[in-house]
Amino acid sequence: MVPHLVTALTGPINELEQRILESTPAIERWFRLEWMEHTPAFYASVDIRNAGYKLTPVDTDLFPTGFNHLTPDMLPLAVQAAMAAIEKICPEARNLLLIPEPRLLPQAAYRTSVQRLIQIFTQAGLNVRLGALDPTLSAPLRIDLPEGEHLMLEPMVRTPRRLGLKHFDPCTILLNTDLSAGTPAILQGLHEQYLLPPLHAGWGVRRKSQHFQAYEEVAKKFAKLLGMDPWLINPLFTRCDAVDTSTRSGVEALQTQADALLAKIRRKHKEYGIAEKPFVVIKADDGTHGARVLTVRDAKELDDLASDTTAPPLPQRLIIQEGVPTYERVHDAVAEPVVYTLDRYVVGGFYRVHAERAVDENLNAPGAGFVPLAFAESHHLPKRDMRPGASAPNRFYMYGVIGRLAMLAAAYELEATDPYAEVYD
Amino acid sequence: MVPHLVTALTGPINELEQRILESTPAIERWFRLEWMEHTPAFYASVDIRNAGYKLTPVDTDLFPTGFNHLTPDMLPLAVQAAMAAIEKICPEARNLLLIPEPRLLPQAAYRTSVQRLIQIFTQAGLNVRLGALDPTLSAPLRIDLPEGEHLMLEPMVRTPRRLGLKHFDPCTILLNTDLSAGTPAILQGLHEQYLLPPLHAGWGVRRKSQHFQAYEEVAKKFAKLLGMDPWLINPLFTRCDAVDTSTRSGVEALQTQADALLAKIRRKHKEYGIAEKPFVVIKADDGTHGARVLTVRDAKELDDLASDTTAPPLPQRLIIQEGVPTYERVHDAVAEPVVYTLDRYVVGGFYRVHAERAVDENLNAPGAGFVPLAFAESHHLPKRDMRPGASAPNRFYMYGVIGRLAMLAAAYELEATDPYAEVYD
Repeated sequence: MVPHLVTALTGPINELEQRILESTPAIERWFRLEWMEHTPAFYASVDIRNAGYKLTPVDTDLFPTGFNHLTPDMLPLAVQAAMAAIEKICPEARNLLLIPEPRLLPQAAYRTSVQRLIQIFTQAGLNVRLGALDPTLSAPLRIDLPEGEHLMLEPMVRTPRRLGLKHFDPCTILLNTDLSAGTPAILQGLHEQYLLPPLHAGWGVRRKSQHFQAYEEVAKKFAKLLGMDPWLINPLFTRCDAVDTSTRSGVEALQTQADALLAKIRRKHKEYGIAEKPFVVIKADDGTHGARVLTVRDAKELDDLASDTTAPPLPQRLIIQEGVPTYERVHDAVAEPVVYTLDRYVVGGFYRVHAERAVDENLNAPGAGFVPLAFAESHHLPKRDMRPGASAPNRFYMYGVIGRLAMLAAAYELEATDPYAEVYD
Repeated sequence: MVPHLVTALTGPINELEQRILESTPAIERWFRLEWMEHTPAFYASVDIRNAGYKLTPVDTDLFPTGFNHLTPDMLPLAVQAAMAAIEKICPEARNLLLIPEPRLLPQAAYRTSVQRLIQIFTQAGLNVRLGALDPTLSAPLRIDLPEGEHLMLEPMVRTPRRLGLKHFDPCTILLNTDLSAGTPAILQGLHEQYLLPPLHAGWGVRRKSQHFQAYEEVAKKFAKLLGMDPWLINPLFTRCDAVDTSTRSGVEALQTQADALLAKIRRKHKEYGIAEKPFVVIKADDGTHGARVLTVRDAKELDDLASDTTAPPLPQRLIIQEGVPTYERVHDAVAEPVVYTLDRYVVGGFYRVHAERAVDENLNAPGAGFVPLAFAESHHLPKRDMRPGASAPNRFYMYGVIGRLAMLAAAYELEATDPYAEVYD
């Protein structure tokens, strides 16, 4: 099933789909050359929005959860990708220590996602065990799974140079916690073991603006390869540091920036004859959970920001980003595709569907549903001679390309922010 | 669907399945370490026979055809494997020249298999074109496909150091012809391009006994890892060079060898309490097509060989191999699994089914059918807690392990027979 795209099927994205299919060998070669220079983010999930006139990533998660939403049909692809990754990182590896996110472990869905990760890496040839970030855990804890099986969460054992469990010394430590509260001491100074992803991929360090700056660079290179306007795949943004929206002057500065970005988008809409009214999204530049996200069509909407004392204040580091509506529908509910990568490969994906959210809202919210089925059909290979927008494998190949561009941007980003970069050079 | 195994479900192979599932991380690590030392055969198809008491490869084809019988669901695995292979061999590669087998091109099924290979390598990021081995072809030849599409077979252009097509200079040449008639001059001396598989993988050079000697070495290593008797996965064999079955003394020498092998098998059957009457298969040691294959339960059956002038003579280089019956059934027809590998990965497979052949006969014969469905379900990952023999993913994981052991044996074999080995050392 291809989700129903509510915009006309003759829009720029269908031309892009056509161009991407025709250029498959060139695109894949381009990725190969990029991977000769850059190390893929170990794993990622990328939220994508298809507005019909524009197709962009909106969020790149370097500690992906939601593996439970991938169809089991895709798991062998993930296993194969994991094999390729292990072979490069540490072929002699026997043991993998997986550290899940303590905040999410109470959720049954997340537990199943962790179970999938264990299955993938076990099948790829590693003994996988779970380490608890919680320092108060003193004995192994049995965590039940919805289908009757269970996980075993174990206390971690730290020595001066290594991290492990009792009688379990891993070669590689895989983090599935986004470290948004900062880096725990137990994870610091582990120079003898592979820590994946690296600590500076944590949301305590990452900035969305750094990611989208790297993505802009990637999008420009890719657009040059295909001879197209990078705006078609790149959301415009402005980074605003040290904003104080509790003062009138702070709000005015923000309004000026928002106005400038809205004007830029308006020009682009005019250039392409897009009737949509542009909007921007204002959100925290770091990954703090639960912070406010504002959708703004006119900077005047921000007038009352300083005097509004009922809502929580905006953080000081903000990103104003071009809003990309999603015009895909699954059974009449707003939907956005999510692409999963492992090493350099696309290993699955699903549609995030939200019946109670609008096309310009964040769908990653309580009440969201997941439709893994659509991506399952992408198992069949793309075909060049299908009508654009009508073939699931073609549509998903394009989404896989955009997902990989975002993941490549994360690779650029992690290089740029690597605190040990000079040591390696 | 798991094919019905007519032997009891408590036999040694079900114990083996259990052992293999329990040892997955160790097995996959063992393969990783082997691939650090040895280069995987580029692609292969391995015929496997499951006798219930014994599970072995019986034929390892290094120029596999039959990609048309793999379910489209498996193709993304093949694409991902092809990407991994290209990345290692020649990441800058743009162009791939694929040389199909002229003898098979008249067959619609083979044409579709070639089309699948083109799809796989195009999707993996290469421009793929077909070169004709036929030196009389002077212009591109359109070859129609069953479903309305077509292939284009082009005359090859040879320069002193390179092979290509008009305006098409490939970095890699992929052979899908088994070179059983020897190596054409046009393929010799190409030291600037990657020729895959290497010329000494051709049936004009290969010997079955060399392959099974390498397989014996691999099987012994693997059996040591799992703490089991290698005989459970290794068919015994004897190589007989310079046999002249047109003379009485030549036949007697062959009978002595066959008797000795039958006695060895009989001892093994006794050890395991197998009621089956042992048999051996006598066939050409090289891959010559259409040569006679004899199934022998008692060396006396060979008495009349010298005086029988109605049948074609046996070749001079023979292999006598332990016969492994296949006790799998799909819809009451005798079936044997075939496993496909690309680079180090299992990328699919099918059941070869023959309603008119017996359990001890070669099923790779006119009239054979193909059931790709069974392997499609192996997309789901193996699970340790299933009853042995009852779970398709578990069964197929075991077949994939045996297929990879045979492919690893081919890697050993090609190293041992490499004419340029000293140059590289």
